[in-house]
Amino acid sequence: MIDYMKEAIKEAIKAGKKGEIPVGAVIVYNGKIIARGRNKREKTQNALLHAEIVAINKACKKLHSWRLENADIYVTLEPCPMCAGAISNARIKRVFYSASDNSDSREIIDKIFSSTRLNHKVELIQGEYQTESSKLLSDFFKSKRLSRKNKNAV
Amino acid sequence: MIDYMKEAIKEAIKAGKKGEIPVGAVIVYNGKIIARGRNKREKTQNALLHAEIVAINKACKKLHSWRLENADIYVTLEPCPMCAGAISNARIKRVFYSASDNSDSREIIDKIFSSTRLNHKVELIQGEYQTESSKLLSDFFKSKRLSRKNKNAV
Repeated sequence: MIDYMKEAIKEAIKAGKKGEIPVGAVIVYNGKIIARGRNKREKTQNALLHAEIVAINKACKKLHSWRLENADIYVTLEPCPMCAGAISNARIKRVFYSASDNSDSREIIDKIFSSTRLNHKVELIQGEYQTESSKLLSDFFKSKRLSRKNKNAV
Repeated sequence: MIDYMKEAIKEAIKAGKKGEIPVGAVIVYNGKIIARGRNKREKTQNALLHAEIVAINKACKKLHSWRLENADIYVTLEPCPMCAGAISNARIKRVFYSASDNSDSREIIDKIFSSTRLNHKVELIQGEYQTESSKLLSDFFKSKRLSRKNKNAV
């Protein structure tokens, strides 16, 4: 059986190697991964290109539909409000996330996923590999701080 | 002086003519319109392509930056949570909207715009042409209902 969160982590690692905040996502439909995404904000200089957005974009193209009903998304970090809104607009059924975001956005995404606006509720589930996904992020920020410190010391 | 909301309404009208929910947006930077967007969800079958997202995408490309600091967005309908999240992520300064959304999402977007997550607050202001923008939407939905009714009668 495919370990979907592990596949999302592979995407996060690729993002980190390109100098992006390491977040990855996959969209699963009928037991198959139909789209993969990783954070591309810095390289593209596009505020929209979080891992989830990249994956939703591809999934809509793949299914020729803006309705991703019965699809699930696996993402290595709890979604931000933009991505939570996109997941809800795309009628995705369930979100499995790995690392927690630890900001005040949890209350916001809970409200987005339970909103009556669209007659669609999204289920939010914390999945596996929390330590791995969090470590990817903390290592990334640690190396960024270190590289800034070294630059300033020159 | 350019009437920015009027320009956003022109985009909304174009969207309606293409069979899309008529919503339009423009992004203003240093007094100039740097990006225009209109809702393209149905034609592209892409859940992401609301007017604001189309415009932010273009504005990031134009400025070669994901940071749209000091830019304002004019949109004919109060943003949904996805678009509010995108506006906040792109560090847009002010949102001028025309028609109200009348759903439970107002509380959500207020929370997104005042969130401490990004160290960035967005100002939300109801602008002019509320009647015009609302009428565009209500006429669109009325004609959709009528066309469904006629189809069912055949």
